[in-house]
Amino acid sequence: MSRSDLSRSTCSVARTIEIVGDTWALMILREMFLGSHRFDELQQFTGASPLILSRRLRRFEAEGIVERRLYSEHPPRHEYRLTRKGRDLWPLIIALKEWGDQWLSGKGPPPVALRHTGCGQTTRPILVCSACGDPIDAITARPHLSAAMARERNALRSR
Amino acid sequence: MSRSDLSRSTCSVARTIEIVGDTWALMILREMFLGSHRFDELQQFTGASPLILSRRLRRFEAEGIVERRLYSEHPPRHEYRLTRKGRDLWPLIIALKEWGDQWLSGKGPPPVALRHTGCGQTTRPILVCSACGDPIDAITARPHLSAAMARERNALRSR
Repeated sequence: MSRSDLSRSTCSVARTIEIVGDTWALMILREMFLGSHRFDELQQFTGASPLILSRRLRRFEAEGIVERRLYSEHPPRHEYRLTRKGRDLWPLIIALKEWGDQWLSGKGPPPVALRHTGCGQTTRPILVCSACGDPIDAITARPHLSAAMARERNALRSR
Repeated sequence: MSRSDLSRSTCSVARTIEIVGDTWALMILREMFLGSHRFDELQQFTGASPLILSRRLRRFEAEGIVERRLYSEHPPRHEYRLTRKGRDLWPLIIALKEWGDQWLSGKGPPPVALRHTGCGQTTRPILVCSACGDPIDAITARPHLSAAMARERNALRSR
């Protein structure tokens, strides 16, 4: 399977990976959630090369994850803003952050703290079950494959 | 900045990306959370080449994300199991899944449904604030940089 085959997979994880599952796509998303919107800022803070950065931004635009907005007419300059679809990728960056804060950082405060504007408190977002509200994790959640997903996996197995 | 510089970043998101932020690392994690543990299964279901798969598994082992266990002595055969550190990456795969289910799939049921063993219900995990328990997202969470992180970003800005 090549990377591009992932976009045809039944699995929504594989299809998402094909769009955002690489180093620079993820770094660009982190940076946009930190409030950078201009090409030069995105380049400085992610360390992506201009070529890679413009490719990823074009792909994000094509996927409806970011939109370009003109912020200067003379000379014409654009900035990049996350759409609602793009903002919905926030839990992905938070998952990277929480794991890094937990497993890679020292004992001190995290490099980026989050404040919840709803309650005004410092927060560490946690995943809960939508049905009962209790915390949920890899041990307490069980995956059940749809018929289409099971068929696809059977076909891969018998190759 | 090269990809390897990310591991020296103050930012825990960047450091996590350096370890798991690529297509095949993410596909392997997805597959292990679906219950695959053997090299040939991981290869079949992710589509990674044997070379890439063995490199990623070695890195995961070095990082303490997976451990190898002998499951057959004659011939010697190993399987790969997520450690606690590895299982803590589950929210990352769930973030990919939920976004894909929401934005890339059709109207039907998701390709993989989750059941919460705690309450027995089908679940769509959601992120909530650890302080007040309300749902939290990119709009209602505000990032605050630590002094170390702000210094690092000032240095990048003035390059």
